[in-house]
Amino acid sequence: MNISDSAVEKSQRETTRLEAVSDGVFAIAITLLVLELTQILHPPNGEHIISYYIHHWEPFFAFLIGFLTILVCWINHHHVFTYIKRTDSNLPWVNGFVLLMITFTPFPTAVLAEYLGQEGNHAIAIFGFNYFMISVASYFICVYPYNRLLIDHNDREFFNCMKLTYGYSIIYTLIAFFVCFISIPVAVVLYLILFIAFAFPKELATRLYKRRQSGKIRAELHKKK
Amino acid sequence: MNISDSAVEKSQRETTRLEAVSDGVFAIAITLLVLELTQILHPPNGEHIISYYIHHWEPFFAFLIGFLTILVCWINHHHVFTYIKRTDSNLPWVNGFVLLMITFTPFPTAVLAEYLGQEGNHAIAIFGFNYFMISVASYFICVYPYNRLLIDHNDREFFNCMKLTYGYSIIYTLIAFFVCFISIPVAVVLYLILFIAFAFPKELATRLYKRRQSGKIRAELHKKK
Amino acid sequence: MNISDSAVEKSQRETTRLEAVSDGVFAIAITLLVLELTQILHPPNGEHIISYYIHHWEPFFAFLIGFLTILVCWINHHHVFTYIKRTDSNLPWVNGFVLLMITFTPFPTAVLAEYLGQEGNHAIAIFGFNYFMISVASYFICVYPYNRLLIDHNDREFFNCMKLTYGYSIIYTLIAFFVCFISIPVAVVLYLILFIAFAFPKELATRLYKRRQSGKIRAELHKKK
Amino acid sequence: MNISDSAVEKSQRETTRLEAVSDGVFAIAITLLVLELTQILHPPNGEHIISYYIHHWEPFFAFLIGFLTILVCWINHHHVFTYIKRTDSNLPWVNGFVLLMITFTPFPTAVLAEYLGQEGNHAIAIFGFNYFMISVASYFICVYPYNRLLIDHNDREFFNCMKLTYGYSIIYTLIAFFVCFISIPVAVVLYLILFIAFAFPKELATRLYKRRQSGKIRAELHKKK
Repeated sequence: MNISDSAVEKSQRETTRLEAVSDGVFAIAITLLVLELTQILHPPNGEHIISYYIHHWEPFFAFLIGFLTILVCWINHHHVFTYIKRTDSNLPWVNGFVLLMITFTPFPTAVLAEYLGQEGNHAIAIFGFNYFMISVASYFICVYPYNRLLIDHNDREFFNCMKLTYGYSIIYTLIAFFVCFISIPVAVVLYLILFIAFAFPKELATRLYKRRQSGKIRAELHKKK
Repeated sequence: MNISDSAVEKSQRETTRLEAVSDGVFAIAITLLVLELTQILHPPNGEHIISYYIHHWEPFFAFLIGFLTILVCWINHHHVFTYIKRTDSNLPWVNGFVLLMITFTPFPTAVLAEYLGQEGNHAIAIFGFNYFMISVASYFICVYPYNRLLIDHNDREFFNCMKLTYGYSIIYTLIAFFVCFISIPVAVVLYLILFIAFAFPKELATRLYKRRQSGKIRAELHKKK
Repeated sequence: MNISDSAVEKSQRETTRLEAVSDGVFAIAITLLVLELTQILHPPNGEHIISYYIHHWEPFFAFLIGFLTILVCWINHHHVFTYIKRTDSNLPWVNGFVLLMITFTPFPTAVLAEYLGQEGNHAIAIFGFNYFMISVASYFICVYPYNRLLIDHNDREFFNCMKLTYGYSIIYTLIAFFVCFISIPVAVVLYLILFIAFAFPKELATRLYKRRQSGKIRAELHKKK
Repeated sequence: MNISDSAVEKSQRETTRLEAVSDGVFAIAITLLVLELTQILHPPNGEHIISYYIHHWEPFFAFLIGFLTILVCWINHHHVFTYIKRTDSNLPWVNGFVLLMITFTPFPTAVLAEYLGQEGNHAIAIFGFNYFMISVASYFICVYPYNRLLIDHNDREFFNCMKLTYGYSIIYTLIAFFVCFISIPVAVVLYLILFIAFAFPKELATRLYKRRQSGKIRAELHKKK
């Protein structure tokens, strides 16, 4: 093995390590969500626990939403990192922005758990703002390696499509954030669509990629005419 | 190394990573259980700590049960993943269902700690419902890779037996759940048997596998007659 | 690579994984200790924070003790596992006993933080009982692989010495536990010696190993005479 | 592979493991910070959550500071460990000192969150004292491997520069600590400069390294004259 190979290998190992630490943060943040449940679910004296929990379903719902949010983020983060082959001094900072939003997520989840019943749209709006920030962070974690050529040349076109999906999600989550103050049901539907779309980031980016490729072919055919 | 080898290796690395993140969630969930102890065990003024703790043994018992539950789940999860050789876009979601139940487990453990003395069968029933859900999740994490051929052909027969043990545990935990409302001692015995059976998942599946193999041989001998 | 090589490699990978999950539990338990500090250190209105913290130094002391305890345990656990080369269905359970004591450690630490000032010897005794249990668990994690031949033949003699050091520590911690009820200063000195001895488990076992080796040589020389 | 190669490889694997456990502690400490937010941010009845959070921005600010502190420490710790190639019985203890300060960091963060508004300079001073201790620990984690030759000969000169940057930071943070009691704005500016400098430890050490190299060349030229 020559020196250049070893340098490439070292940089790749660095990327793996960065992802491993991020995975740790995801795993911890997703597990901390339960602490909110154990803290707020003490039925006042006299009430039976099962019936109390059935009537106070909001914290369980918030727990599920928080869990799915961090799981979707993990799947997306992991998908992005399968394409990042090199690292530099700034990438840990760009990645740190994503991790900041992930470690913060238990807070809006706790707000949702406690205020969904009383101040529904405010609680959802705070969670929605978190989604907006996550979208911005996800966009940056794509833009930076794309511009600094930290991804392989062959993956460039496809990675660009991934980048675009996160770019679109910024606008989408910004609109959904304002919708929270107007109508809860519409906002919930909007976030549901967002969830489903980003649950399978590879398939989402592939769809965009294929559309752009066929668009290119059509454009070329048009030019030939 | 040719391209196909590299793809196989990549998919296997993905499976390893999925298991590593799951391991992280298991490790965190099992360690968070102690927070319940530090939160509720403040003896009221005047009582001595050692005698107070001896009289309030329920939280310690719940801590032990929660610990053993997550440890058994980890051993089973790990055993299942030794056979999963490939991954796809859906597997993280099926695995996510298992992780959801694991991260949730500290909640029924906390309920057990605080209400075992006052509302015994309700507290056990909530824990029992958690067991039922874990069984369902464990069954899915076997069914999905089995149907999608994510396991090696040679392991297929044995993996099917593992799948069946989790399938049976769904029915078992459902019955045990209803028993909780009738008789606590019977329910405790039922859960104890469940624990012992799944403490060694490999041996459990091997027993079923051997029985089925000898059944097949007997059936073939019968056919020849 | 032939089948037997691959089986050896697989078993070794299993041991590595077991240690990785244990490392996760150690890392989490050691980090959770701080939660006790953030929970109990709210100065009553009017008092300045710095002077309040200086007068209430017990929780900081307990935090340090808890931290050192888990760190010493990690160093010992890690040292033991460098010699364990194979695994079986029971090893995760023996290791689970060690992890149970580690995940439990934040509780006696919290008791120490809150009751060191008021019920000093009771609080230290609870912590001391934890040390006794850790010693028992550490002894088992040595006895089991030693008896089941999960360590290499060449390391057997040395591993036996390690096993003996943990065996001696069971008796030592049992004595120290009873001393807690008689004299706090003597107990503290006893635990301090324990700490220093097990801070460097390799050196401790090596000393015993050398003494036994030279004892053997002397015995053989004696026999020759 | 001969025995000596294997010993080198083993020692390097040990270093990797030490770093992996440390990474775990960093990941957990950074994620636990959010628990302070979920605990103290319950608006008193009647006030709307969004307006309450906007008026009580201090905990969010403290969360951000705590997060950045641990992230900077992680980046520096990771940078130092890329040069440590061997380990010995003492290195886990030197590293343990760094981890002690990291696991402690959520406490000064919590103090900052709750007392920034009321006792600003005391809260910042406590955080500043934490910075001072982190600097001392970072210096030790450089001094020890440097003196014990745990780093490659080729990296020695550069590693010495890294060591010096942490040495300077001890004096710097000590001065900043005393400034806290005199003027908050000046202290904040001082810590801001510290942050920016250590956000990119490689670049910082490289700058010092180049200055020293050119200083040497100048000195040699001077001697030749």
